[in-house]
Amino acid sequence: MQTIRKRALLALSAMSFGLVTASASWSAEMLDEVMKRRGLTEKDVLAAAKTYVPTGKRDEFLAFSSGGQSGQLIVYGIPSMRILKYVAVFTPEPWQGYGFDDESKKVLAQGRINGKDILFGDTHHPAISETNGEYDGRWLFINDKNNPRMAVVDLHDFETKQIVVNPIMKSEHGGAFVTPNTEYVIEAAQYPAPLEDEYVPLEQFNERYRGAVTYWKFNREAGRIDPSQSFSVELPPYSQDLSDFGKGPSDGWSFTNSFCSERYVGGIEKGRPPFEAGCSQKDTDFLHMINWKKGAELFKAGKTKMINGHPVITMETAVKEGMLFLIPEPKSPHGADVSPDGKYVIISGKLDSHTYVYSFEKMMNLIKNKDFVGKDPYGIPILDLKKSLHTQVQAGLGPLHTQYDSKPCVAYTSIYVDSQVTKWDYCEGKVLDKLSIHYNIGHLMTMEGDSVTPKGKYLVSLNKLAIDRFNPVGPLHPQNHQLIDISGDKMELLYDMPLPLGEPHYAVAISADKLKPIIRYKSGWDTRTDKRHPNRTRPGKEKVVRDGNKVTVFGTTIRSHITPEIVEVKEGDVVTFHMTNLERAQDQTHGFAISGTNANLSLEPGKTASVTITADKPGVYPYYCTEFCSALHLEMQGYLLVQPKGYKEVAVKGAEGTIYTQTDYDKQHKTNLETQEVIDSVVAYIVARNYQDFAPVVSLVEDATEQLGFAADTRKKAEDFAAKQDWQNATLWAGQWWQYQVKAADIGLRAKTYLDQHGAKVVKE
Amino acid sequence: MQTIRKRALLALSAMSFGLVTASASWSAEMLDEVMKRRGLTEKDVLAAAKTYVPTGKRDEFLAFSSGGQSGQLIVYGIPSMRILKYVAVFTPEPWQGYGFDDESKKVLAQGRINGKDILFGDTHHPAISETNGEYDGRWLFINDKNNPRMAVVDLHDFETKQIVVNPIMKSEHGGAFVTPNTEYVIEAAQYPAPLEDEYVPLEQFNERYRGAVTYWKFNREAGRIDPSQSFSVELPPYSQDLSDFGKGPSDGWSFTNSFCSERYVGGIEKGRPPFEAGCSQKDTDFLHMINWKKGAELFKAGKTKMINGHPVITMETAVKEGMLFLIPEPKSPHGADVSPDGKYVIISGKLDSHTYVYSFEKMMNLIKNKDFVGKDPYGIPILDLKKSLHTQVQAGLGPLHTQYDSKPCVAYTSIYVDSQVTKWDYCEGKVLDKLSIHYNIGHLMTMEGDSVTPKGKYLVSLNKLAIDRFNPVGPLHPQNHQLIDISGDKMELLYDMPLPLGEPHYAVAISADKLKPIIRYKSGWDTRTDKRHPNRTRPGKEKVVRDGNKVTVFGTTIRSHITPEIVEVKEGDVVTFHMTNLERAQDQTHGFAISGTNANLSLEPGKTASVTITADKPGVYPYYCTEFCSALHLEMQGYLLVQPKGYKEVAVKGAEGTIYTQTDYDKQHKTNLETQEVIDSVVAYIVARNYQDFAPVVSLVEDATEQLGFAADTRKKAEDFAAKQDWQNATLWAGQWWQYQVKAADIGLRAKTYLDQHGAKVVKE
Repeated sequence: MQTIRKRALLALSAMSFGLVTASASWSAEMLDEVMKRRGLTEKDVLAAAKTYVPTGKRDEFLAFSSGGQSGQLIVYGIPSMRILKYVAVFTPEPWQGYGFDDESKKVLAQGRINGKDILFGDTHHPAISETNGEYDGRWLFINDKNNPRMAVVDLHDFETKQIVVNPIMKSEHGGAFVTPNTEYVIEAAQYPAPLEDEYVPLEQFNERYRGAVTYWKFNREAGRIDPSQSFSVELPPYSQDLSDFGKGPSDGWSFTNSFCSERYVGGIEKGRPPFEAGCSQKDTDFLHMINWKKGAELFKAGKTKMINGHPVITMETAVKEGMLFLIPEPKSPHGADVSPDGKYVIISGKLDSHTYVYSFEKMMNLIKNKDFVGKDPYGIPILDLKKSLHTQVQAGLGPLHTQYDSKPCVAYTSIYVDSQVTKWDYCEGKVLDKLSIHYNIGHLMTMEGDSVTPKGKYLVSLNKLAIDRFNPVGPLHPQNHQLIDISGDKMELLYDMPLPLGEPHYAVAISADKLKPIIRYKSGWDTRTDKRHPNRTRPGKEKVVRDGNKVTVFGTTIRSHITPEIVEVKEGDVVTFHMTNLERAQDQTHGFAISGTNANLSLEPGKTASVTITADKPGVYPYYCTEFCSALHLEMQGYLLVQPKGYKEVAVKGAEGTIYTQTDYDKQHKTNLETQEVIDSVVAYIVARNYQDFAPVVSLVEDATEQLGFAADTRKKAEDFAAKQDWQNATLWAGQWWQYQVKAADIGLRAKTYLDQHGAKVVKE
Repeated sequence: MQTIRKRALLALSAMSFGLVTASASWSAEMLDEVMKRRGLTEKDVLAAAKTYVPTGKRDEFLAFSSGGQSGQLIVYGIPSMRILKYVAVFTPEPWQGYGFDDESKKVLAQGRINGKDILFGDTHHPAISETNGEYDGRWLFINDKNNPRMAVVDLHDFETKQIVVNPIMKSEHGGAFVTPNTEYVIEAAQYPAPLEDEYVPLEQFNERYRGAVTYWKFNREAGRIDPSQSFSVELPPYSQDLSDFGKGPSDGWSFTNSFCSERYVGGIEKGRPPFEAGCSQKDTDFLHMINWKKGAELFKAGKTKMINGHPVITMETAVKEGMLFLIPEPKSPHGADVSPDGKYVIISGKLDSHTYVYSFEKMMNLIKNKDFVGKDPYGIPILDLKKSLHTQVQAGLGPLHTQYDSKPCVAYTSIYVDSQVTKWDYCEGKVLDKLSIHYNIGHLMTMEGDSVTPKGKYLVSLNKLAIDRFNPVGPLHPQNHQLIDISGDKMELLYDMPLPLGEPHYAVAISADKLKPIIRYKSGWDTRTDKRHPNRTRPGKEKVVRDGNKVTVFGTTIRSHITPEIVEVKEGDVVTFHMTNLERAQDQTHGFAISGTNANLSLEPGKTASVTITADKPGVYPYYCTEFCSALHLEMQGYLLVQPKGYKEVAVKGAEGTIYTQTDYDKQHKTNLETQEVIDSVVAYIVARNYQDFAPVVSLVEDATEQLGFAADTRKKAEDFAAKQDWQNATLWAGQWWQYQVKAADIGLRAKTYLDQHGAKVVKE
C-alpha cells in the first residue's frame, strides 16, 4: 500500500495531460433513428431544438414566478424552462439558511403579525423594478395574499431583504405592480374587512367593511420600502383584484379590478346561497381608477386619516379631490393590463367571452366633462362603459389576463374555460390565432410583456391544472407552465414544464443580459442588511469569548476546515456562532450545521452568518460543513461539547489515535515535492496559453494561487516541526500541505479542462 | 350589457365545435435554420431529441434525489430532467401543508430530539424498497445526516409517513440502504460520539467515543419502521461512511466504509493541525463487514446491551460471535458498492486514483480460514487487503462512487478531482471510456443501478459544483446533474440540469412503469396514518361544535365553496378546523388558509386535514381556497369572526348588497336553459365517440356528471324559491345552478379537446 500516493501522483500527471477523447460516435446514430425509437414527430424535434440549451450555454430570458402557497419565488430560464433557484421569501428554507440564521430571522420577523411569526405566504404577483417603464433588473417585489405582506428581493444576490406588513388590510391580491420609475409598489385588498383591525359583525358589511389600495414608497438608494412615506386609499367593500399602473399618457394613474361588487355575504351553512352564487350574479363589476400622483400630493398635504398609525385617504376625500372613479368592467375580471404605449387598459371578465379595450383618452374626456352615469353607494362617480371602450373582441370563454407582444397592437389573452391562448389585435379588434393549452390557463407571460417595450419571442401559459401531462406523482400534481413560440404568425407549443413545488400565479420574464448578479460578497458581509457584518472574522483572528453564560464564537470556514474545531461550553450557556466564509472562489459555499439542533447556515463566499443555541443538554454535538465543497469535505468537521453543570475538568491527556515517525514525515515530504512538480507543470500548461482571455480561468488561477499560498505556509510549519524533530506535528502539517496541493491541483485541472474545451491557444512555448 | 351572458353562451357553443386549427407552419422553418440561429451543433440536436419529452408523453424513469440540507426529497423524470415534485420530509413545506396541518405535524413530531422540533434535515441517500433485490416502487427511505434520523415515504401518494430518531448516534451518513427484501434499512454513524448521549471529554475519544450501525426493521404490512424490532452494532470511533447490503451470495452481510480511522482529533484553534490533515494521513481506512443475519439472531437471543433503551450488540459480542470484520480500503472512500450478482464490492478512496474490486468469495475464505493480518485496537479481526482483492483499476484522480450497467461486468465510477466519469470492466479490470463532466462529481446514478438488474441506458452525474454552467443567480449556485447516454460504447453527455433548491448527494432511479401512485384518496382520509379520518365530514353534514372554549369546525370544500362560509367564535376560543375535500376528480386539490395565521391546508381529493388556532385577537379573518381550482376560485371564500370578550350580540339585520327581482330570475333561468342545450350537445359530441377507450375522458365524464347532478339540485332550490316568489333566493340559486353548468362545461370542453387530440372515432351518429 506504500505506493498509493505514488500512483495518485502518476495519475494526476497522466490525467492532466492525457486529453479525454471527444467521442466521434454521433455520426453513427442518425436523428431519424432517435425519432423513430422515441416516437418523435418533426414538430417535436423542432420544439426540442428551439428549447435545448447545451451545456455551458445560457438561457435568453429569466422568468421570476410566484410560488403560491409555498411562500417562495421561482426563477427559471427561457427557453430551456430549467428552474435555477427557489428564492425563500416568506417561508423558512434551510438550504439557503433562510429563517435559520439570525440575520434572515430578522427579515422574517419584520413580517410578524400581531407579534406572531407567520411561516408561510401565498405569493401571487412578482414585479421587477422599472426605469422609464423598462425592467431594470435591480429589485423584485412580491406579495402575500393571505397575510397580507409585501417583500423586496435584491436581484444582485437573489436574497429577500425586507418584508412589510400591510397595516390596514386582512387579505390582498392586486400587487405587486410598480410605477414606471418604481416610485411606488401597489398592493390592493382582496376580501373586505374593517380597516381598523377590529371585530365588526357581518351585518355591517356595507357600512363598515372596506377595501383599499396601498402605495408603498420604494427608496431606490436604500433598496427598501419606506413605510413612513407610504399611504393608502380607502375603497368600497368590493373585492379588489388585480392592478396595474399607467404609463406614458396614463402615467400617474393606477387601475384595480374588483369582483363581488354585489357585496354579497354568503352563509351556505345557514341555507344562504354560497359566495360563488351571490358574487357572480351581476353582469359587471367595477374597475377602480385612481390618480396616485394626486394621492401622493394629498398624503404630503396631510389630507389623510390615520388608521392603525397609517395614513389613509378616505373615499370622501378621494371623491372630493377628483382622484377616484369607477367604470363597469366585465364580471369577475382577472387583470387590468395597460398597453405598452399606455393608451389602453385591457380587461377580461372570466364569466364573459370578450376582452374589453378601454381607451384612457376617452376615460379622461369623460372625467373632464364630468360625464358620469351615476355614483356607486359610496358616492364614487361611475364612467359609462360603452363610452370608455375603444373596442371589444370575442376571445373565448373565460378570458383572464392579457400580455403584450413586441409587435404593435398584438396581445395575448389567457382563456380559462376553453383552455386556450388567443392572439389578437387590440387596435383593430380582431382575433389573429388561437392555441390549445393543457389545462385551464390562469395568467400568461410574454417577455417583458408588461413593460413599455415587450420583447416578443416567447409566451408562457401558467396553467392551473396539469392533470395527465406528466408522470403521476400522487394526488398532489405539479403545475404546468407551457412555453409557446410567438415569433411567427401562428403560436407554436414548445415545451411542458412541471412546477414541482408551489402553485405559481403570475410570473415576469426579463432579458437575461439585464441581470448582473454578483458571485461573491465583500469579505465578512451581512447579506440581509448589505453592510459589513459587525461580527465578521478575519483569518487567524478566530476566537471564543465568554461573558457570563453568554459564549460567542467568531469562526471561519475555508476548504476544508472550520475554525475553531473544538468549542467547549457549559450547560445553560447561550452560544452564538458568527461564521465567516473566507472563500472568494465562485460557488465555494460552505455550510455549518450542529447535530441535533436547528443550527444550519449557508455561507456563500464572503458571507458572515450567525446562529444562537442554548446549550441546555450536556453532551457531544458534532458540527460540519453541509456543502460538498472539496475532496476532504467530510473531514470538515468539529465538536461542540457541553459540560454538565458542576463538571470539574480533569487533567487527562488524550492519547493520539495514530503515532507518526520520521519515516512517515520523510515519505510525505517527498510526495509533496513530487506533487509540486506536477502542479508546476499544470501551471506551465495554463500560462503557456491565452488563459487571461477567459474570465472563469483567471478566477480559477487566482483561487489556485491562494491555495498554493496556504500550501507554502503549512510547508513552513511542517519543516519547522521537523527541525525540532517533532515528527507527529511535522507529519500532520506535511499532510495538510499536501491537502492544499490537492485543492490547487483540483482547481488547476478545472482550469485546464476549460481551456481545452474553449479553444485556448498557445501563446508561448 | 344585458347581452353578456348571451354572448358567453354563443361563445361556448362556437368554441365547443369550432376546431382549433392545428398549425401547419412547421414545414416553413427548417431545423437547420433553428440550429444556425441558436448556434446548435448536430450533437446538440441529437441530445435535444434524446431528452425532449413532448406534451402529454411520459418520462421513462423517475429519479428520487436527496435534497441535502433542504430536508426534502426531489423527484424528476429521465430523460427530460424535469423536476416533478419536491416531497417535504424533514422540513415544513406549506404548499403540501406539511408541518402546517395537525396530521403532518404529528409526523414531524416523531422527529423531535430531546423534545425539540428539528425543522430541517440534511438528507443524503434515498433507497427504494426492494423485493428479491429488485426495486418494487412501494416505499422510499431517506436519512438525515445532521440529526440523525430516518424517514419513510409512501410512493403510493408521495407523502412522508414516518420519522424515526436514531437512539444512540449524534450524526450519521451511511443510510438508507435496504436488504434485498427490505427487511432492514441500514443507518451508519458518521462522526463518533459517546453512544450514551452524555458529555465525555475528547481526551477519552479512543476509549469512549464510538461509531455504530443501526438496522431498522421495516414492517411492510404496516408500511412503517418498527423500532421495537430494530437493533444496532457498536463500532470503533472511525467515522463510518457509506454502506451497502450484500445480495445473492453475499446476502446476509452489510458493508460500511469509514474515514479517519487515524482517530485524529483536530483543534486548529489550539495550534493542532486540522481534522482534514490528521484524518487523511494514513494510506488506508477500514471497510466494516457485518453479518446482519447473525446480528438479527443475536438480537432475538437477547445478546444485546441496552443503551438509551435501544438494544446494541457490543463490539466484544460481535467479535466473539464472528459477525464483525475489517478490511483495509483505500483512503477516505465514498461508497461500498455491491455488484448486481453480489460477488464483488467495489470501493474507491477519494485520495487515491484506483477503484478496488473486493471478492466476497475471497473474503469469506479468509474468514473461514481465520486468515487475518491482525486486529484493530478494539480487537476486531482485519482481513488482508491484497488477498481480498479481485482486481484494481486506475480510474482517475479522486474516485468516489460506483454504479452498474445492464451490461455484464460494466461499471461507472465518479472521479471527483478529475471531474470525469470512468466506464470500466470490473471483471477484466480495464478502463473502457472516460467522459468529462462539469464539475466535481460526487455520487453518480444509473437506472436501478444498485439493484440486481440494472437497466442501463442513462447515467446521471451528481456534480457538486456548477460554477459557470447556468445563468448566474447570485452567490448561491444551483447544483448540476448531468444526464449521460450510456447505451452505446462511448458515453455521451446529453443534458445539464440545474437543481434549484438543496444540494443532492445521492439519487436512485426506477422504471416509471413500476410506480402506481393513486390520484385520489378514499373519501375522508387521514393521509399520514392512511386510515379513515375520525373527523371526516360527509357533504351536508358540515357543523360547528362548541365544548367550553373549544370550537370544532367540521367543514368541506368543493368547487367553488367552503362549507361553512361563516364561522363566528369568541376571543380566547381554541378553534380546530377539520376540512374534507369532497372532490374525486384528478388534480382537484383545494387549499384552505386563514388570514394572518399559519393555518394553511393542502386538500387533495378525498383528504381530510386539520388545523388548530387560538382566537386570541378579536377581529375579522377571511379564509379562502389557495389553489386556483375553478373559474370562481377567488369567490371560494369565507370569514372567521372573533368576537371580543364580553361582546353582546345586537340583533341587526344586515342589508343585502344587491336586490334581485323576478326579471333577474327570469333572465337567469332562461340563460340556464339555453346553457343546458349547449351542454347537452357537448355531451352528445362525446358519447358519439369511443370516449370509453380513453381513461382520462371517462374520469372527466364522471366528474361532469357529478357537477350536473349538483346543477339539478340547485335548479330545484331556485324553482322552489321562485314558486314562493322569493326572487332574491330564486335568482341567487339560479346563479349557483349556472355556476355548476359552467363547471360541467369546463370539464366537457377538456374532454372534447382530449378526444380531438387523441384521435377518437365516431362510434354512433
